[in-house]
Amino acid sequence: MSAAAVTGGVRRGPSIVDITITPIAVQDPPLLNSVGVHEPFALRAILQVRTDDGLVGLSEAYGDDPTLDRLRRAAPALTGLSIWDLNGLNHRVAVALGEVTPDSHTELAGAPNVGKAIGSTVSAFEVALFDLQGKATGLRVCDLLGGPVRDAVPFSAYLFYKWAAHPGQEPDGFGEALDPDGIVAQARALVDRYGFGSLKLKGGVFAPDEEIAAVRALRAAFPGHPLRLDPNANWTVPTSHRVAEELTGVLEYLEDPTDGIPGMAEVAARTGLPLATNMCVTTFEDIPESVALDAVRIVLSDHHFWGGLRATQKLAGICDTFGLGLSMHSNTHLGISLAAMTHLAAAIPNLTYACDTHSVWQVEEVIEPGAIAIRDGVAAVPDGPGLGVTLDEDALAKLHEQYLSCGIRRRDDVGYMRTVYPDWTGARPRF
Amino acid sequence: MSAAAVTGGVRRGPSIVDITITPIAVQDPPLLNSVGVHEPFALRAILQVRTDDGLVGLSEAYGDDPTLDRLRRAAPALTGLSIWDLNGLNHRVAVALGEVTPDSHTELAGAPNVGKAIGSTVSAFEVALFDLQGKATGLRVCDLLGGPVRDAVPFSAYLFYKWAAHPGQEPDGFGEALDPDGIVAQARALVDRYGFGSLKLKGGVFAPDEEIAAVRALRAAFPGHPLRLDPNANWTVPTSHRVAEELTGVLEYLEDPTDGIPGMAEVAARTGLPLATNMCVTTFEDIPESVALDAVRIVLSDHHFWGGLRATQKLAGICDTFGLGLSMHSNTHLGISLAAMTHLAAAIPNLTYACDTHSVWQVEEVIEPGAIAIRDGVAAVPDGPGLGVTLDEDALAKLHEQYLSCGIRRRDDVGYMRTVYPDWTGARPRF
Repeated sequence: MSAAAVTGGVRRGPSIVDITITPIAVQDPPLLNSVGVHEPFALRAILQVRTDDGLVGLSEAYGDDPTLDRLRRAAPALTGLSIWDLNGLNHRVAVALGEVTPDSHTELAGAPNVGKAIGSTVSAFEVALFDLQGKATGLRVCDLLGGPVRDAVPFSAYLFYKWAAHPGQEPDGFGEALDPDGIVAQARALVDRYGFGSLKLKGGVFAPDEEIAAVRALRAAFPGHPLRLDPNANWTVPTSHRVAEELTGVLEYLEDPTDGIPGMAEVAARTGLPLATNMCVTTFEDIPESVALDAVRIVLSDHHFWGGLRATQKLAGICDTFGLGLSMHSNTHLGISLAAMTHLAAAIPNLTYACDTHSVWQVEEVIEPGAIAIRDGVAAVPDGPGLGVTLDEDALAKLHEQYLSCGIRRRDDVGYMRTVYPDWTGARPRF
Repeated sequence: MSAAAVTGGVRRGPSIVDITITPIAVQDPPLLNSVGVHEPFALRAILQVRTDDGLVGLSEAYGDDPTLDRLRRAAPALTGLSIWDLNGLNHRVAVALGEVTPDSHTELAGAPNVGKAIGSTVSAFEVALFDLQGKATGLRVCDLLGGPVRDAVPFSAYLFYKWAAHPGQEPDGFGEALDPDGIVAQARALVDRYGFGSLKLKGGVFAPDEEIAAVRALRAAFPGHPLRLDPNANWTVPTSHRVAEELTGVLEYLEDPTDGIPGMAEVAARTGLPLATNMCVTTFEDIPESVALDAVRIVLSDHHFWGGLRATQKLAGICDTFGLGLSMHSNTHLGISLAAMTHLAAAIPNLTYACDTHSVWQVEEVIEPGAIAIRDGVAAVPDGPGLGVTLDEDALAKLHEQYLSCGIRRRDDVGYMRTVYPDWTGARPRF
């Protein structure tokens, strides 16, 4: 224990001496969504947070330029912070980012705002602090979060309409999926390989009737699998009404059919089909209006932008109190985030839906294999300590080289789609 | 680390091997409230939770028969529980108390219900687990709760109308307070001794005009001190309206003028004076209705019945999200609870009001002196580890003997008042 970590004779735990932030790029297939298509590479940032005791905590965050800028502005302010001082982390980040303004980039998880920008920065560091707390005590992150209520966390198969190949490239190993048959074949492959017990289709790509047909084909092919459809707010309120009516009794829930809390509330008022969101309720500031208007029945949490693991538990407490369901959203991510999501989901009693994960679409990894994987539709909680995963330094170096050479610096599904369809705007709602 | 605490090769921390629950009785002055008067002794329970590593965690809870019964029924179910497994604690207690039914006893903190009964049982053990976590890691409880945002917690002077002596006994050292002059003198004594910066008057005892006069006398004598009045739901809605109108601009907030969420909402709708509660919102189940009706602006938390330290942080997150203020309620308690309250309050950013404490009315103590005390109106966070307090075994034995001999087994302010005023019913609202 260093002198810096001792105050008033009491141990406050190890404290931060150094933070390394490494942007990486990972190959990504041409997955289609309401605003465009995934580029050939997706960006992540890998954080290594070192303490005066020589421990290293890991975290994984968004890797786009605005995120990296915030991480790099906040990191120096964290020197000397105890690995236990989560309130101090919140405060230091908020101060360091006091001047941040909303960035406009095309995320699918709702419009960025200051709260979310600070929350995502706090989260990136907080996960590393939890990894460090675990390494300091020998406990798993799920133990530090109150103890696992389940040993393994169910995830859903994340189905995408997709092209056979990126433009100008050879076909990838996943195959094309542009109609109901293609989606069912994709689902079959994912269920066969990973044992998924729930299926989620990323919609908002084709006209609603085509996506309804895909859902019905999934229902026929997988009669026992809960189904979800997520058009990412690409529908008007009337379209949403119509689809909700057609798919009531077929879907487990319908995600973000239309944009904004008032629109969602209008849809919700006329359907018995539960509505879920990771777009109109993405910060704590959104919750009171959503509750007052009864806009959604299920919130899809995401520790990456809600402000971290504790903040997601706060969200879980709110959902529990107000009778809202809780599920988990995912952007493209690697194994460090999968471990964090799994520890968190294991420790939240009322997170009772299978979680989303993009994992199955990633062919590259940044952690050493064996610590965490999806089998029989679930990810077992890593044995720890901390997150229970180990960084693969060679992979990190290679993926960082890929970042340097790929030229992508922020996600732009719209612009990439435009390289194929020059008139594409990505404007919503399209249907 | 014992074999029992190791599963799958991973340390889960020390686990519980034994729990001692010791009921105690402490002398209490004849403090008046809306339902009656404090009896000569108040009951508490002291918990000593031992682990396989030989650590002992402390906690302090209610000591009435129904509470003791629940604690004793739950304790055996906790053998083998990791000190980190708070979700496991909740689950085991809920199972052990599955058959519990509401008990009818005259608490001032709202009607007991099953949720509160389970919550208070969980809390009693959870505080000891946090003390153990701190002792296992060398950290303070406030560090484990996310880190202190303040080094010292402000408390308010808890003013009571009181008799000079218990019936048939010699006058106590606190003096009589039955009119505005008596209340001002009491406030002066407490402010002189403890440096309190806020004053709270327990009202609902005399006719509202007398209590308004007392508040105005306090305002004149202490022009800079925030003031609060708590009639414990002893007023009708019209009376509450009238008093709120008279004291707007004088009080910081008005606590529980009338009974129930609808009544409080009716009062709130017609006054700008913020209403606070520890009676109509006492469980998470109460919150949605209160939010929907905008019944209160401030919730007075109490880890003893909200379900523990983490549950109070959950409540704090809800208050933060819905724009509600957060303060802290107190029943009669000793130093273990004061330490727990102080660690908790130190770690909650949005707990920004001075907390209530009955501490000043207790002339007996169960912890060794020096760890925690109120000076300059604040209690400094004990230096830890854990709660940072040490049990005084001799005092515990003496107070337990006092429990055995005093004959009181559950709080009964109504019945005790009836020994002086045979027609007394304690029925509310009286005004």
